[in-house]
Amino acid sequence: MSDYREMWEKLGLDLQAHDGLLEVLPPLYGETILSQENRPKGMEYFDFVFSEIHGLRVKELVDHRAQGGLVVGTFCTYVPEELIIAAGGICVGLCAGAQVAEEATEQYLPRNLCALIKSSLGFKLAKVCPYIESCDLLVGETTCDGKKKYYEILGQFQPVHVMELPQRKDDVDRALWRSEVRRLAARLEELAGRKIEPESLREAIKVVNEKRRALLRLAELRKSDPPVISGRDALLINQIAFYDDPKRLAEKVNALCDELEERREKGIAIGGAHRPRLLLSGCPMAIPNWKLPAIIETYGALVAMDEMCTGIRYFRHLVDEEPADLEGMLDAIADRYLRIDCAVFTPNRERIEHIKELVGDYSIDAVVYYALQFCDPYTVEAFLIRQELEKEGIPFLYLESDYSTEDVGQLTTRVQALVEMLTSG
Amino acid sequence: MSDYREMWEKLGLDLQAHDGLLEVLPPLYGETILSQENRPKGMEYFDFVFSEIHGLRVKELVDHRAQGGLVVGTFCTYVPEELIIAAGGICVGLCAGAQVAEEATEQYLPRNLCALIKSSLGFKLAKVCPYIESCDLLVGETTCDGKKKYYEILGQFQPVHVMELPQRKDDVDRALWRSEVRRLAARLEELAGRKIEPESLREAIKVVNEKRRALLRLAELRKSDPPVISGRDALLINQIAFYDDPKRLAEKVNALCDELEERREKGIAIGGAHRPRLLLSGCPMAIPNWKLPAIIETYGALVAMDEMCTGIRYFRHLVDEEPADLEGMLDAIADRYLRIDCAVFTPNRERIEHIKELVGDYSIDAVVYYALQFCDPYTVEAFLIRQELEKEGIPFLYLESDYSTEDVGQLTTRVQALVEMLTSG
Repeated sequence: MSDYREMWEKLGLDLQAHDGLLEVLPPLYGETILSQENRPKGMEYFDFVFSEIHGLRVKELVDHRAQGGLVVGTFCTYVPEELIIAAGGICVGLCAGAQVAEEATEQYLPRNLCALIKSSLGFKLAKVCPYIESCDLLVGETTCDGKKKYYEILGQFQPVHVMELPQRKDDVDRALWRSEVRRLAARLEELAGRKIEPESLREAIKVVNEKRRALLRLAELRKSDPPVISGRDALLINQIAFYDDPKRLAEKVNALCDELEERREKGIAIGGAHRPRLLLSGCPMAIPNWKLPAIIETYGALVAMDEMCTGIRYFRHLVDEEPADLEGMLDAIADRYLRIDCAVFTPNRERIEHIKELVGDYSIDAVVYYALQFCDPYTVEAFLIRQELEKEGIPFLYLESDYSTEDVGQLTTRVQALVEMLTSG
Repeated sequence: MSDYREMWEKLGLDLQAHDGLLEVLPPLYGETILSQENRPKGMEYFDFVFSEIHGLRVKELVDHRAQGGLVVGTFCTYVPEELIIAAGGICVGLCAGAQVAEEATEQYLPRNLCALIKSSLGFKLAKVCPYIESCDLLVGETTCDGKKKYYEILGQFQPVHVMELPQRKDDVDRALWRSEVRRLAARLEELAGRKIEPESLREAIKVVNEKRRALLRLAELRKSDPPVISGRDALLINQIAFYDDPKRLAEKVNALCDELEERREKGIAIGGAHRPRLLLSGCPMAIPNWKLPAIIETYGALVAMDEMCTGIRYFRHLVDEEPADLEGMLDAIADRYLRIDCAVFTPNRERIEHIKELVGDYSIDAVVYYALQFCDPYTVEAFLIRQELEKEGIPFLYLESDYSTEDVGQLTTRVQALVEMLTSG
């Protein structure tokens, strides 16, 4: 990656700290992802993208800006990528999945705050994320308390636009959210120095829907038993979907799906004997947070589906492509994003129903609930989900974790106990 | 209090556990409140109310219900008491300030959740709060993540109505909040089986404003230096204001203020030599959470003002009494409550400005920031407040705590160090 040093320097990265980060990633990737046997050939593209995580893709962002295009960073699945694309921008997900600069971070944020938020500020303070440094604008949202208040601090470092997400889904909330979608559109237009035209918005809706359709096709293939793709590989693809070029990503995911369909016909499965099929449900897992899926798949089970923002929640709903005029498209976008069933909503009955649906559709043997420590929406909602699942006799394992490796032993013990229970039963 | 046993039993309390709780309170009260020297005579009423905390006032609620009146419980300063009164109801604040039934609570809620929420469920599970058991309806609000999601669980025990509080204060938020105020009014009307008439709403607005005016008068008197009332006594009055009859409370507060004005004229101060004047800012302190004010005032300083929901935030703004028609009054109520500057709003510039104002108005020597552990809105907002205060050279002490007594030593050490710094300077 030495060709990129000049680029990183221009972006203001701390090259030494950045070198340190880049040294950690390849062995972790090798151990967690590349070590899997019998992976589909189509994963090579994603391996390549990952190997160039701070290189080629960042160069694309830099080149895009050099040509006058915008780069906009987001932290959440609620921010409409369509608007960014229609304004001539590239949307990159900035959620961070590694402990960085903890001490410095705690000068700004309380110690007892979710790892994802602390990590985000850590990357900023340590100057080791070329993505955030490439952004013309960061778009936050009032999802959880922690992020909502964090954006006020982040705004001292870089321009931040915060979308207000309502907390219920009634008519008055829809009205608020539709107006928030327009407020973001106006901000992007101002920044881009151009109007969002109906043409380009229509095209953007198609592009992002195509990405979602490709990921939905892959999700369908995860229903196969024996499995044709591992949970780790599927997670990696979802994670990359947050920052890769959406058209190219859709193409590559579709090519992979072609291969997986072929493999399925030929009876080529990954892994060995039948393994318990688990649904991972809960908080997002940002790169390189593969800790729990790796434990699960190392110790005899399969992550058959992820009910999380780095899983099916990201691509489950399409934007309605019917509306032809700008206002209709903006409403359709708003409505699509408001359907997302994040735990920040109250009540959030849809999520419980969806989990039960997934349990049936993916022949799930047990639900593993993954909560980031101190994440109130997901840790509290866990109770209601456990209650409903246990009523139906579906095993439920609640795990709280953060980005450290200190709890690997404990997580392993609990996952092993679950797998043993499921396989001996 | 033995006369009340039958009442408590009818309310479904666990008498044995309840006895245990009642045994703890009087010595704590004696030590923290009654032990103060030279207290004004007007405090006798509040001592009496506290001594009857689970007795006389609860009997009033029971009698009110027996006559067909409503009792409505709230957890937050955002719920308009005016609507409850206008619907013929009594409003009681249910925020809880003591560790109760921790183990049972953790069957429902994550361990790492703010003490106030856990305490609330603890009182419910242990069946030791006659107030919550007297309620026809509990009214929650989507302030913080923890409470918002907790109400979903609480709703399994008792009817809960949740108001959606927006997270910003723009026009679209005001529209949402005004409609939420009407949604609560409709719910109360349904429950009461009667309309909220303009007459009764006008009267209710006056009653609650009178309570606020009395508390504001007391707040004004806290500007006196030397002080005429301790921070602990002022806090106690604020805490009682959440559940006592509002007219009676206003009367008693005004009588106390008469006495304090007299004392001030005569030069009768409480405490001895000049003590550093501290502003307590942050999370609410529900009964019997007097831990930090007791430490501060035992170790040589004065809590001159409380910038919290159990302080000036509760009564700072009046409802505009101008509007004569029902819709106008409802809007005036909504607008008044939306002015509250809780840390859940983003941005929340008003709070910073108000703190700076209080520092000037109350001749504050240092700000002590009190955050309940795991309370993201207040723990994260602390950074911005510290930043602004330090810019102006105002000492700032950040303290995180919960409802245990384990940290008393540590809190004492830090408060002592602050007092020493302020007195030696």
